Amino acid sequence: MSGSSDTEQFMQAAFAEAQKGYDEGGIPIGSVIVHNGQIIGRGHNRRVQQGSPILHGEMDAFENAGRQKASVYAQATLYTTLSPCAMCSGAILLYGIKRVIVGENQTFLGEEELLKSRGVSVEVRHDSACRDLMRRFIAEKPELWNEDIGQEL
Amino acid sequence: MSGSSDTEQFMQAAFAEAQKGYDEGGIPIGSVIVHNGQIIGRGHNRRVQQGSPILHGEMDAFENAGRQKASVYAQATLYTTLSPCAMCSGAILLYGIKRVIVGENQTFLGEEELLKSRGVSVEVRHDSACRDLMRRFIAEKPELWNEDIGQEL
Repeated sequence: MSGSSDTEQFMQAAFAEAQKGYDEGGIPIGSVIVHNGQIIGRGHNRRVQQGSPILHGEMDAFENAGRQKASVYAQATLYTTLSPCAMCSGAILLYGIKRVIVGENQTFLGEEELLKSRGVSVEVRHDSACRDLMRRFIAEKPELWNEDIGQEL
Repeated sequence: MSGSSDTEQFMQAAFAEAQKGYDEGGIPIGSVIVHNGQIIGRGHNRRVQQGSPILHGEMDAFENAGRQKASVYAQATLYTTLSPCAMCSGAILLYGIKRVIVGENQTFLGEEELLKSRGVSVEVRHDSACRDLMRRFIAEKPELWNEDIGQEL
């Protein structure tokens, strides 16, 4: 990964979650939610680990952040290793997260345009580590990946 | 509730979930997902019960339906007592649910237009039982309700 500063640190934390998911035999997508310079929720996709269709990485981060006030979400930034799908983008919109940092959007392009159209700042980092991990996973388990995005091979 | 047939039966099942949530001290929104005339997942909002910001009624129904093939979702109908928010609408879009039956949209109007713009059939039943239960809850616990839709009083 390139870059420096807090943004780099938090994207590395999201990537560490993705790697943990991969190591567990799951789908390697990770996310952290940051407020006032602190991670308040972190998570990774748990489709395999918990048999869950709703625990995408971002959703798991929301869940682990727990119940928060609207004023906290409004000041928070969500980091995710992969461009957020419709469900995760919907959660971002519901809670009024205003800034989303995306590791990469080449292996999957989510609802970035919808987010932007609602005033969310979306920054894509084109991170090669995030992309390479996803590419490896998709090559290894294409059916699992398709299931996660509502597709069927 | 008015109407008859399967639609009525499934909306009553969603309402029973909402009522269960209310009786538990939670937010009274319920949902069922139906495939081939059978309920494959049912759920209700669990913000209070599980301290969860992601288990809206529809999300809980998806979770309880478990991992499904895209071909199942494509033939499924989601029933919800209340117009689906951005997060739940996003899940509907992710999984390609093509038909959504909504109890009421007067106490809260969700992302019905977004769903329709993506080709989802949205039918609002203007059900007085769903509406009355939500109105009672909102009057009793306005702060909790606002938290659930990402607002702050």
